[in-house]
Amino acid sequence: MKPIYLDYNASTPVDPQVLDEMLPYLRERFGNPSSSHSFGVANRAAIEQARERLALLLGCGAPEVIFTSGATESNNMVIKGVAKAAGKGKHFITSAIEHPAVLEPCRHLERFGYRVTYLPVDRFGMVDPVELGKAITKDTALVSIMHSNNEVGTIQDIAALARVASSRGVLFHTDAAQSAGKVRVSVEELGVDFLTVAGHKFYAPKGIGALYIRNGRKLPPLLNGAGHERGLRPGTENTAAIVGLGAAAVIAMPILQAEGARLAGLGTRLFEGLRAAGLRVHLNGHPEHKLPNTWNISFGGANAVSVMEALPGVAVSPGAACHGDLVEPSHVLAAMGTDPELARGAIRFSLGRETTEAEIDAVVEKLKSGLTR
Amino acid sequence: MKPIYLDYNASTPVDPQVLDEMLPYLRERFGNPSSSHSFGVANRAAIEQARERLALLLGCGAPEVIFTSGATESNNMVIKGVAKAAGKGKHFITSAIEHPAVLEPCRHLERFGYRVTYLPVDRFGMVDPVELGKAITKDTALVSIMHSNNEVGTIQDIAALARVASSRGVLFHTDAAQSAGKVRVSVEELGVDFLTVAGHKFYAPKGIGALYIRNGRKLPPLLNGAGHERGLRPGTENTAAIVGLGAAAVIAMPILQAEGARLAGLGTRLFEGLRAAGLRVHLNGHPEHKLPNTWNISFGGANAVSVMEALPGVAVSPGAACHGDLVEPSHVLAAMGTDPELARGAIRFSLGRETTEAEIDAVVEKLKSGLTR
Repeated sequence: MKPIYLDYNASTPVDPQVLDEMLPYLRERFGNPSSSHSFGVANRAAIEQARERLALLLGCGAPEVIFTSGATESNNMVIKGVAKAAGKGKHFITSAIEHPAVLEPCRHLERFGYRVTYLPVDRFGMVDPVELGKAITKDTALVSIMHSNNEVGTIQDIAALARVASSRGVLFHTDAAQSAGKVRVSVEELGVDFLTVAGHKFYAPKGIGALYIRNGRKLPPLLNGAGHERGLRPGTENTAAIVGLGAAAVIAMPILQAEGARLAGLGTRLFEGLRAAGLRVHLNGHPEHKLPNTWNISFGGANAVSVMEALPGVAVSPGAACHGDLVEPSHVLAAMGTDPELARGAIRFSLGRETTEAEIDAVVEKLKSGLTR
Repeated sequence: MKPIYLDYNASTPVDPQVLDEMLPYLRERFGNPSSSHSFGVANRAAIEQARERLALLLGCGAPEVIFTSGATESNNMVIKGVAKAAGKGKHFITSAIEHPAVLEPCRHLERFGYRVTYLPVDRFGMVDPVELGKAITKDTALVSIMHSNNEVGTIQDIAALARVASSRGVLFHTDAAQSAGKVRVSVEELGVDFLTVAGHKFYAPKGIGALYIRNGRKLPPLLNGAGHERGLRPGTENTAAIVGLGAAAVIAMPILQAEGARLAGLGTRLFEGLRAAGLRVHLNGHPEHKLPNTWNISFGGANAVSVMEALPGVAVSPGAACHGDLVEPSHVLAAMGTDPELARGAIRFSLGRETTEAEIDAVVEKLKSGLTR
């Protein structure tokens, strides 16, 4: 039987149309974009078109987008860049449920004398704007709070949080690695200064990401080298992957709402199906303000390993996937105050474009027979 | 007429076999290598095979190789990492003819209170090991000297230079971006502690590189995040590109000598052909210790723009290609003491696997008719 892939938050397949647009840049259009001859010029134009396309998805100007090797690099660039920038304070604010790609750069700063506040979240994983306001001091340089959480899917009220920061003159960054291309992400509506994008979370390839830098905001480069990306990101541009990211943006935009609704429906079908099967299931994360594709479900009384054993041929994630070889207890569920027994039984089902009703029904059947014996 | 590409040092095409090996990882094998399910495990195995393959090319152990987004990142990781490492001195040594991906991280350190010595080169672009010995002080933390120069192709005597450094207890890094996969690069023979590899210089895709870190040498990560690459390089692995880099290593190794000899022959045919055509040509770089594919030729009395105008449909580089939009005077030729008039007329012809005798002869013909009227 064909395996069932329900781990789209770990990584998505590359959309076939994305790959089709990339292939010429892995074949005949191989020039260095910095070269002045025809092999280079064609690459340069493709990169700038991709920048326009991604800017359209984010609702910003193309010059506000730079390409990076992925979300980890984008997050490092903002957090360390603001720390290095002259005249800024030495206090940073983030949340307790961030991805390691934000938490670890913050911990890095702590080792160098910076102070970091890790804001708590409520039981749904939400950060309270009032708490943010209380945490800001005269020394606060940056607030970095993720747009949506990779494990439970909770979407923050970034607009409200960013308003609190900007009213106090503090820069605001959001890691939108799990949101861009899945739900509406408009930098104008959000009012953020910096925003991180990850290609492989929305059907572009791995190894490519982007960083939105609001016009007028200054960041030093994280890498030093030649003058690529207006001096902000040196290194020969990864043209094929950049073209892929632009293509993924074009594909995602018109279907954002309909596909979101479809996946929310499939997730509801999963959760209600499990409940109807008599399983003691609990939905982790916010019931409404959440990614429509992300369904983090605890199975009361069962731990994640036994749930996964009941799901042979089904790819899901026990907690967060991309944190190395070991399955560690989820810092996200702990911060949400999830009952430890429930937390041990949490499974992330993350749905995507190829997920079907039949697959959802098959998963329900497997769990019904595997867990209710 | 089909354009003639003689700019392989700027970027190579992806070898069709490399692309074939990559494609499954851009199609059905799209899982996150960190995932424990079958979609992840297949990726993990492919990454480790690629690491073995690259290690074989470099003559090192697989655990000594980590994958990065490219040579710029690898260079930054070494230079800034050694600077950050505890207990090291604040003096760095490099050469005057390095790529910006080494020079700029060094200048970055200077802004933070480090001292950098830029060793001179002789008229062939060679660094003198005796000069290196004189430059080393008790405070020297790292010597970083490129294996071969991207503009003129001069290959340094890295083994001799590294011996000088190690005899004084100083770490040695070489940027082998232009050498790996083109000429023999054995880290044991060279005796280096760190070595930089760039994928797109030897028929792997852009956006992938590697760093050799000698067993026992410690470097802090440049990016902070999740625990990928043994904690040294966080961010979801770019599986397809990593597989491509491994495939490129496998292809390069058995043909290294024969292809080098073929390209040296074609380059000689070019240079001698131009001379026989009555053109006043001068070869920049070392006549023997050089990359066989790299022919940096000055046309006495002509500047680079007029030479390139005589070469419609031929992709060559006037000086270094990947330094942004502008053609800047070459810092390499200046450091070599090249006569300014000759330097202004310098063209880099860099040959590669698809270069043919017919193409070389066509270039000679074009220049003969374009420059001798």
